[in-house]
Amino acid sequence: MKFQIVGYALGILITIVGLAEMAPAMVDWRDGHENAWAFFFNGIVCVFFGGSLILSNRGADFRMTLRQAFLLTASLWGVIGVFCALPLYMSDLNLTYVDAFFEAVSGITTTGATVLTGLDGMSAGVLLWRSMMQWAGGLGIIVFAIVFLPYLKVGGMQIFHSEESGTSEKVMPRTNEVVGSLFKVYLLITGVCAAVYLFLGMGWFDALNHAFTTVSTGGFSTHDASFQFFESAALEYAAIFFMILAALPFLLYVRMFFQGRFLFLRDEQVRAFFVMLIVSIAVLSLWLFFYADRPEGDGFRAVLFSVVSILTTTGFVTVDYTLWGGFALLGFLLLSYTGACAGSTAGGAKMMRVVIAGKVVARQFKILLYPSGVFVLNYQGRRLDNNIILAVLGFLSLYVMTNVAVTILLSLTGLDFETSLSAAASALANIGPGVGGMVGPMGHYGDLSSAAKWILCAGMIIGRLEILTILVLMSPAYWRP
Amino acid sequence: MKFQIVGYALGILITIVGLAEMAPAMVDWRDGHENAWAFFFNGIVCVFFGGSLILSNRGADFRMTLRQAFLLTASLWGVIGVFCALPLYMSDLNLTYVDAFFEAVSGITTTGATVLTGLDGMSAGVLLWRSMMQWAGGLGIIVFAIVFLPYLKVGGMQIFHSEESGTSEKVMPRTNEVVGSLFKVYLLITGVCAAVYLFLGMGWFDALNHAFTTVSTGGFSTHDASFQFFESAALEYAAIFFMILAALPFLLYVRMFFQGRFLFLRDEQVRAFFVMLIVSIAVLSLWLFFYADRPEGDGFRAVLFSVVSILTTTGFVTVDYTLWGGFALLGFLLLSYTGACAGSTAGGAKMMRVVIAGKVVARQFKILLYPSGVFVLNYQGRRLDNNIILAVLGFLSLYVMTNVAVTILLSLTGLDFETSLSAAASALANIGPGVGGMVGPMGHYGDLSSAAKWILCAGMIIGRLEILTILVLMSPAYWRP
Repeated sequence: MKFQIVGYALGILITIVGLAEMAPAMVDWRDGHENAWAFFFNGIVCVFFGGSLILSNRGADFRMTLRQAFLLTASLWGVIGVFCALPLYMSDLNLTYVDAFFEAVSGITTTGATVLTGLDGMSAGVLLWRSMMQWAGGLGIIVFAIVFLPYLKVGGMQIFHSEESGTSEKVMPRTNEVVGSLFKVYLLITGVCAAVYLFLGMGWFDALNHAFTTVSTGGFSTHDASFQFFESAALEYAAIFFMILAALPFLLYVRMFFQGRFLFLRDEQVRAFFVMLIVSIAVLSLWLFFYADRPEGDGFRAVLFSVVSILTTTGFVTVDYTLWGGFALLGFLLLSYTGACAGSTAGGAKMMRVVIAGKVVARQFKILLYPSGVFVLNYQGRRLDNNIILAVLGFLSLYVMTNVAVTILLSLTGLDFETSLSAAASALANIGPGVGGMVGPMGHYGDLSSAAKWILCAGMIIGRLEILTILVLMSPAYWRP
Repeated sequence: MKFQIVGYALGILITIVGLAEMAPAMVDWRDGHENAWAFFFNGIVCVFFGGSLILSNRGADFRMTLRQAFLLTASLWGVIGVFCALPLYMSDLNLTYVDAFFEAVSGITTTGATVLTGLDGMSAGVLLWRSMMQWAGGLGIIVFAIVFLPYLKVGGMQIFHSEESGTSEKVMPRTNEVVGSLFKVYLLITGVCAAVYLFLGMGWFDALNHAFTTVSTGGFSTHDASFQFFESAALEYAAIFFMILAALPFLLYVRMFFQGRFLFLRDEQVRAFFVMLIVSIAVLSLWLFFYADRPEGDGFRAVLFSVVSILTTTGFVTVDYTLWGGFALLGFLLLSYTGACAGSTAGGAKMMRVVIAGKVVARQFKILLYPSGVFVLNYQGRRLDNNIILAVLGFLSLYVMTNVAVTILLSLTGLDFETSLSAAASALANIGPGVGGMVGPMGHYGDLSSAAKWILCAGMIIGRLEILTILVLMSPAYWRP
């Protein structure tokens, strides 16, 4: 197997990381903060390291084999995480390397779990760097999901591949054009989000950072209290709106802006996502209404914000929903599994797969009653062949198994069952907060053991890359010549 | 839809229940205990009620349609439970009806969860009745799994259908003959088990009752302390041996005794079951060995007994394994999902389905790496077609969804998350003890709310009847003319 193309691609991305570090460097330099040097120094290191990777792998064969593509995508988030963690490690935060790496991985996977406290007193550069990582990670995952996954045929994602290539209109002939359009859309939504936040009363720095972490459904904040800090209903509604926007398939925005076709309501994923959203909010509101011990002031808006935040896998917090009783706890745990739409910045199992699994189960009932009948499954008007169905069901089985495995590993580090399960689910779905004490909406991950942090880093990357992309590297078949 | 055949079959079974109640009636009459009248009176009621059902549905068309078969099997355990509960309700235990029904359903589904305490002081008739219900329920489920399920094609059970009918030898030409052979085998194993228990020091009454509940993997005991009462290593090893025997496919015993073919080691289910058993015991023993806070005296035998008891879904208890730390707790929860072999008295998802799901997932990795390759899946040397694979994966999805639904309902009654999840899993897999406080190995279900008990009754029946058999009745397609 030739690794040149993998090295070349990593070189380019590490160089970009290095150049990006100049932004927080400049912000901290303006403030006269010592962290400027950490960012500046590491930026230089990244540019040199990335540059030498590019140079040493120049002239590589640009046609990637399937194995190279798997290796590249699997190593991408981990390697970039190593480099993104360096300025945090060298900053005035005095982090251990595992903490810095956890924070970086949580950033680039758009998870939003943090080991840090005292955000309000940190240097602007560090805060900006955290938000930038999420923003870039969000863009990265959309490109990954739309360009790479259908080609890798991971977890039934070929459904989108055939959708694109099957239309006679030749809508998107070239990958570069698609990526370019996605970038413009992503930039546009981020800009509008920042402007709205600014208009509704955030400072420009907060507005920019929160726009970065909203549109990427990341959930890092510049304040320990997250969105609770602002105490503004208008800002919360704005965040709800933009979290939902970020959880819809970005290709549909491209269609809207560049082709004038509004396809959201015709998309089965989008419809299922909104049904899920409305049902969850209704059920939880009813529960809270009839649940006697609910804390003061938790109204409809708190439910709306929390459900949207978890279902879109963002992880912003305005209220401690773990105080809403056992049923709510379980509800939030379950919401963390489905996630939002494939092809967005959101994590989780994805609505597309939930919809297909639901259709398969419904069909099994019909088959039981009419054993000789033939029942065709459709998704978006296209017939689902058995390969896609098995890929989707296989993915979901593997998702559950991976969650169980991560839970077991976490429980081996001494965490209790609820915390282990919840932290594992939250990491795999790239949400951030879970429902246990330490990992709940009001906790932070700083008090976990180093072992637990490493396990969660692996969980976040595995979850972000749709599990199979990573696990395929561990299968004996991959390494067989 | 004609219901006559359903009524006729129920009539026969209710009459049998009535006749069976004469046994505890006689035992209590011998002891001069008032409960004799409860059993005697209800026995008469059952015989009359069952008899009139038989008479009024005489001359029914004996060819059952698929819909009638589903209705019969789905109503069977519930209706029988109603009648089995009556003598308990009228006994000196002063139970509410929900408690009596819970105990009866827990009996006939071979679950073994109990709402009763003070077993050691109860009338012999009540104790015998509980054991008899489990023994009959165990026999019932084997017949159901081997005769009905392959015909209903529930959850991939047609695999066993084709296995039987596909051999050129015409091994088992007639259903009656199979059922007769199964009954003889079941009787034989029960007899040997009782004899061994007697020989190793149990009284004859305890030996008989525990043989009934061991061979049916039920787990009711005649003592509050369950197997801990006897404080005998020899008896525990005997119980371990017979629990394992009861968790193997009974058709293989028929083959062994009536055809002289020893096929256990060639059966993929059996092999997977033993691998699972050995790995679980090894891992848990290692964990306990290195786990500092382990309670005194919990040695290898305690691990062996507990793992076998849970994996075979029996539910006998010798030790409070919930004190073994978070990892052990999680391990026992997970073990409760897989269950043992299909075609045995054990519950759970069944090893057959676990094996097939594992093969599907492994194949998905190969497909990712070799998209143009064709990978055939085999089970027991036969090719698995897509219908069976989808039936198995659909079953597992539904199993998880049902577990989630039952957990949600339980949490709505006010139970905490861990108890809800564990009680739901334990009920669906027909085990008995869970890992939560009230529902743990040292707790009992008596303190749960009535709502929770009804929910768990439904869960036990749904789990025992392989989920789809019940849920198909709730699908709109079933009631469409």
